[in-house]
Amino acid sequence: MKFCSQCGSPVSWQTPSGDHRPRFVCSSCSTVHYQNPKIVAGCLPLWRGQVLLCRRAIEPRRGFWTLPGGFMENDETMEQAAVRETLEEACVRVEGLELYTLFDLPHIHQVHVFFRARLVDTNFAAGEESLEVGLFHEAEIPWPELAFPTVGHTLEYFFEDRVRQLYPVRNEPLAPLIALSRRTPWNNFDR
Amino acid sequence: MKFCSQCGSPVSWQTPSGDHRPRFVCSSCSTVHYQNPKIVAGCLPLWRGQVLLCRRAIEPRRGFWTLPGGFMENDETMEQAAVRETLEEACVRVEGLELYTLFDLPHIHQVHVFFRARLVDTNFAAGEESLEVGLFHEAEIPWPELAFPTVGHTLEYFFEDRVRQLYPVRNEPLAPLIALSRRTPWNNFDR
Repeated sequence: MKFCSQCGSPVSWQTPSGDHRPRFVCSSCSTVHYQNPKIVAGCLPLWRGQVLLCRRAIEPRRGFWTLPGGFMENDETMEQAAVRETLEEACVRVEGLELYTLFDLPHIHQVHVFFRARLVDTNFAAGEESLEVGLFHEAEIPWPELAFPTVGHTLEYFFEDRVRQLYPVRNEPLAPLIALSRRTPWNNFDR
Repeated sequence: MKFCSQCGSPVSWQTPSGDHRPRFVCSSCSTVHYQNPKIVAGCLPLWRGQVLLCRRAIEPRRGFWTLPGGFMENDETMEQAAVRETLEEACVRVEGLELYTLFDLPHIHQVHVFFRARLVDTNFAAGEESLEVGLFHEAEIPWPELAFPTVGHTLEYFFEDRVRQLYPVRNEPLAPLIALSRRTPWNNFDR
């Protein structure tokens, strides 16, 4: 950020009076420009024991497999965002969404939220942001080719929880070092 | 938003090519300025069956009671935000945080997240944004004087769940009309 979005004057990086941390402040109209974390919402779409994954057609991580998901927009709920992203990336509808995993990613100013969901049918197809879309049994998951650590963790938790048929909501931070120190197959490629 | 924060030129409200919704787009450098929902994180701080509430010293809802909470900042987790806000507003530390309620507020582009938490001691005090801070048994909760619907819902769920000692994580949308149609005492004042 270099200019004030209200008046167009240059901004400076300073701690406003009464505040505890530096912000972008307008040199002319004094507007304080707050910057806050963004929510990425996605689905773990299920069909008869299989999980739907999308192979990304766009950067970052083009060519790698992901659960459908993306940035939550204004005017929608997290659940609506997850449904919309699944429709956009896999051209298919989901229902029965249940909040499942929430990962804090403070180093990139994001929170990733995934919902377990049922596919309404198997008429999926690659959306504009996907190269291909497919259903995978647990043994078929392409662990070394997953796009993001939060996708890998969500899948790991799911297969673990499925044994007991209990799916507690999970919230945990995922810092770069934590991700690297976990010896899970899907993040080998991340080193 | 009137000006581009990257180059200072005027922005226009248009749908960028390849996008599905209008955004602020720079007329000069073509930067697309995305706007996304913000997370408000807070605590339900507990001490021997009592709940800590803060009476707000600032707008909105000055003079009304709230659970400590506020906007999540970049570089922190939701849990860290909830702990920080409790320290700022009630001058007290909490521990043992457990994710509890998540409310989607699409009409104001916010998600409110509350954690159940234990107070480490009762040396609380009014922070800069509070007029007073106190502990309340269930029968003492000032329902008609609660600041926000998400605070009221979180307290209702807590006293309901406490009977069974089971605290499932809850996620639900809270639109203005939904809030008004619920006949709960704490939102009478909101009409």
